[in-house]
Amino acid sequence: MREDAQHALAQVDEARLWRRHVEMARIGAIPNNGVNRAALSDEDIAARTLLISWARARNFGVSVDGIGNLFLRREGRDAVAAPVMTGSHMDSQPRGGRFDGIYGVLAGLEALEAIDAAGLETQRPIEVVAWTNEEGGRFPPCTMGSAVHTGARALEDFLEVKDNDGIVLKDALARTLAATPDAGARAFGSPAAAYIEAHIEQGPRLELEGKTIGVVTGIQGLRWFNIEVSGKTDHAGTTPLKLRKDALRDAIAIINALHELTRDDSDTLRFTVGRMLVTPNSPNSVASHVLFSVDLRHPDRATIDRLGQAVEPAARAAARQCSVKVTPTLHDDPRVFDPGVVDIVEACARELALPCMRLASGASHDAMYMARVCPTGMIFVPCENGVSHNEAENAKPGDLAAGARVLTAVLLELAGR
Amino acid sequence: MREDAQHALAQVDEARLWRRHVEMARIGAIPNNGVNRAALSDEDIAARTLLISWARARNFGVSVDGIGNLFLRREGRDAVAAPVMTGSHMDSQPRGGRFDGIYGVLAGLEALEAIDAAGLETQRPIEVVAWTNEEGGRFPPCTMGSAVHTGARALEDFLEVKDNDGIVLKDALARTLAATPDAGARAFGSPAAAYIEAHIEQGPRLELEGKTIGVVTGIQGLRWFNIEVSGKTDHAGTTPLKLRKDALRDAIAIINALHELTRDDSDTLRFTVGRMLVTPNSPNSVASHVLFSVDLRHPDRATIDRLGQAVEPAARAAARQCSVKVTPTLHDDPRVFDPGVVDIVEACARELALPCMRLASGASHDAMYMARVCPTGMIFVPCENGVSHNEAENAKPGDLAAGARVLTAVLLELAGR
Repeated sequence: MREDAQHALAQVDEARLWRRHVEMARIGAIPNNGVNRAALSDEDIAARTLLISWARARNFGVSVDGIGNLFLRREGRDAVAAPVMTGSHMDSQPRGGRFDGIYGVLAGLEALEAIDAAGLETQRPIEVVAWTNEEGGRFPPCTMGSAVHTGARALEDFLEVKDNDGIVLKDALARTLAATPDAGARAFGSPAAAYIEAHIEQGPRLELEGKTIGVVTGIQGLRWFNIEVSGKTDHAGTTPLKLRKDALRDAIAIINALHELTRDDSDTLRFTVGRMLVTPNSPNSVASHVLFSVDLRHPDRATIDRLGQAVEPAARAAARQCSVKVTPTLHDDPRVFDPGVVDIVEACARELALPCMRLASGASHDAMYMARVCPTGMIFVPCENGVSHNEAENAKPGDLAAGARVLTAVLLELAGR
Repeated sequence: MREDAQHALAQVDEARLWRRHVEMARIGAIPNNGVNRAALSDEDIAARTLLISWARARNFGVSVDGIGNLFLRREGRDAVAAPVMTGSHMDSQPRGGRFDGIYGVLAGLEALEAIDAAGLETQRPIEVVAWTNEEGGRFPPCTMGSAVHTGARALEDFLEVKDNDGIVLKDALARTLAATPDAGARAFGSPAAAYIEAHIEQGPRLELEGKTIGVVTGIQGLRWFNIEVSGKTDHAGTTPLKLRKDALRDAIAIINALHELTRDDSDTLRFTVGRMLVTPNSPNSVASHVLFSVDLRHPDRATIDRLGQAVEPAARAAARQCSVKVTPTLHDDPRVFDPGVVDIVEACARELALPCMRLASGASHDAMYMARVCPTGMIFVPCENGVSHNEAENAKPGDLAAGARVLTAVLLELAGR
C-alpha cells in the first residue's frame, strides 16, 4: 500500500465514527437501545439533516434524486468521470437497531473524511449515498431507492404505496424532499464506476469464526408477495361458520399451505410472514379482509424460481371461502458480485492484517441493484450473536473502524490515483 | 289493551324514529351506508349530545354513571320506586351498520315520547339507557358498561385497556364524561324493576319465517380470550428457521389447534378469531409478538364450560418456540330470560296482531348483564338477510316502528298504571 494511502487510513477516527452512530441512534430511539427510523418519516428527515451538516462541514457536494436518495460527493481529478460509490441506508425496521444500514453510510462518510484529511487526490470522484427506504418496513417493498435509481423499477410503481396508517408514499416523499431544499437535483441512473457497501453481517458467521472482515461474494435470491384475502364481515355470535367468508381463516389456511410448500430439512430456505393487517380487526366481527406479506429466499436460482412460481397457485388452492389476490412486490434473483471487486476487498483486508473470510449475504442490500449496473462488492463486519432487525443489535467500535479502514483502502483502489 | 295505552301506541311516530336513525347514522358515517362510531370517541360524544338534546326537549331527566352509561328518565307516580328500564347502545363496530344498538336506544326514546305525548302516568319511572362500549370493538371486551353498572365487573378492571392506537380507556372515558357536564351523576348498581331491550335480530330467522317480532328467550354462552404469543424479532433473510422464535408462526399453530378443538359438524358452535395485532409488523422482520382474540359461543352450558376450559391448555400445547399468555376477558354463561317478561312481550305482540316467534339470541347484549339483577327480556325486529356488523346492515322503517310499539306496550305493562 502506498504511503499516502496508509496516511489516509490513519485518519479513520474510531471515536468519531462511534460518536456519530450514537448521535444517529438518538433519532428515533426506542427502549432497549433500539431505533425506529421509518423511511420518509420525521426521523428520516432529521437523520438526513444531520448527515448533510457533516458533509457541508467538509465542503462535500450534496444532491438528492427524485426518490430521495441522498448523495455526498468529493470531487476527483477527472470531474466528468463516473464516480466510485459507497453507502447504504438510514431507515430502520420498526424495532430495529443502531447499526443496520446507518453503518454503511457513516463508514462511507468516515472514509471520505479520512481521504480528505490526508489531502489525497483521486482520479474519479467518490460518492457516499444514503438510499431511501431500504427496509421497506413502512412502505413495502424494501430496497426501493436503489431499485428506482438503477432503473430496475419505475418511481411511479411506488407512489401510491400506503403505510399501515394509510399515508401514501408520494406525500411522505414530497415532505422529505421539501426538507432539504438546498440539496442539488440528481437524475436517476447517473453512471457509477463501481459500488462498494459496508454493512453489519446480520448473521452469526464472522463472530463464530473469529473474523473481523467478511468479503461478501453475493446475495441470495428473494421473492416478496402481498397476499390479500377478501371475504365478508359478519357477526361472530350469529353467523354459522358454514355461511361465513372469514378472511382470517382463509389467510391462515394459505399460510399453512405455504409452510408445507416451503418445508426444507436443510434449513437453507427462508420463509417469513412478518406483516399482517386484519380488517375490521374487532373480536366479535368476522374478518372481511386480510393482507399479509410473504418473504421467500434461497441462494439457488432454480429453487427460488420454482418456489416463487408456486406461491400463487398454492394460495389459490388453499382458500376455501374467500377471493385471493397475490401481488409480487419484489423479485431479486441470486446475485454474484464482481470477482474483481471481491478480490480487492479481500486484498485490502489482508494488507491491513485483518482476519477475513468470504461469505454470501442472507439479507438483501442496495448492492443487489447496484450490481446490475456496475462492478459491485460488500464488506461485512461482525454483529453480536448475529442479531439484527432487533433492538439488541450490537457491534464493536473497533470492528466498525476496521471495516471503515478496509472501505477507505478499497475506495482509493477503485477511484484510482 | 286499555284505551289510553292504545292512544300512547298511536303516538309512536315511524317517520320520526326513522329520521333519528338517519341523523345518528351521519355521526361516524363510512362508505356504503356504514357507521364507525367507536366507544368513547368523538363520534360517541356527538351521539350522546344529540340524544340528550332530544331528551331535554321533552324535559326527561339525564344522568350518567362512572363508566359513561347514559340514562334518560321519565318520572312515575311513585318517585322512589325502582324504574323499568329499556335501552341498548350507541357505539358500533369499526365497519358497522345503522341499526345495531342505536335502534334499542331510539326505540326506547320513541316509547317514552309516545307515553309522554299521550299524557299517561305510570306507577314506576321509565328510563332509557345508552350503555357504554357494548361492542368492545375499540376497547375489548364487549358489554362493558352493563357489566360494570350491574357489578359483575369492576370499573378498575378496564381503566388501563388500550385501543389499537395505544389510547388508554380511562383517558377516553374522562374526555367523554367531560363532554356532558350537565348530566346528573348516577351511582353504579341503581335498582331496576325490569329491563327490556329492543334490537335488530342480527341473524336471518325472523326474515326467513316472515315474522315482525322476535320474542327473545335467552342468550347463548360466551367466552372471550386474549392470547399473546411472545418470541423474538430477527432478520427474515439471515436467521435459520430452526433458530427463530416466530410469534406469528406459533400464533397460527395455536389457531390451528383451536380450530381442531372447536370442530362442530352441527354448526352450532361459534368460534371466531377477529382481531390480530402483529409486532413489529414488517415483511422482513420475524414477528416478536402477536396478540389475537378468541370469541367462543354455545347455547349449552356444559359445552361452553368444557371448551372454555380447554382453550388455554390447547394454546400452550400448540406453541413450539414462543411463550404464551392466555387472558380470559369475558365469561358469560348461557342466560335464560325471565318467563314472565317473555310472556308479556309475546302477549303484547299478539295483541298488536304482529307476526311473532320465540327465539334465542346468538349475539350478546347488555340484557345479559341486566338479567342477573332484574327480570329481563328482549324484542327483536328483522334485519335484511340477517346481516350485521357490516355496512350492509339494513332494516325496514315499518318493522322498527312495530318493535317500538311492542316496546311501548311492554313498558306500560311493566311500569304499572
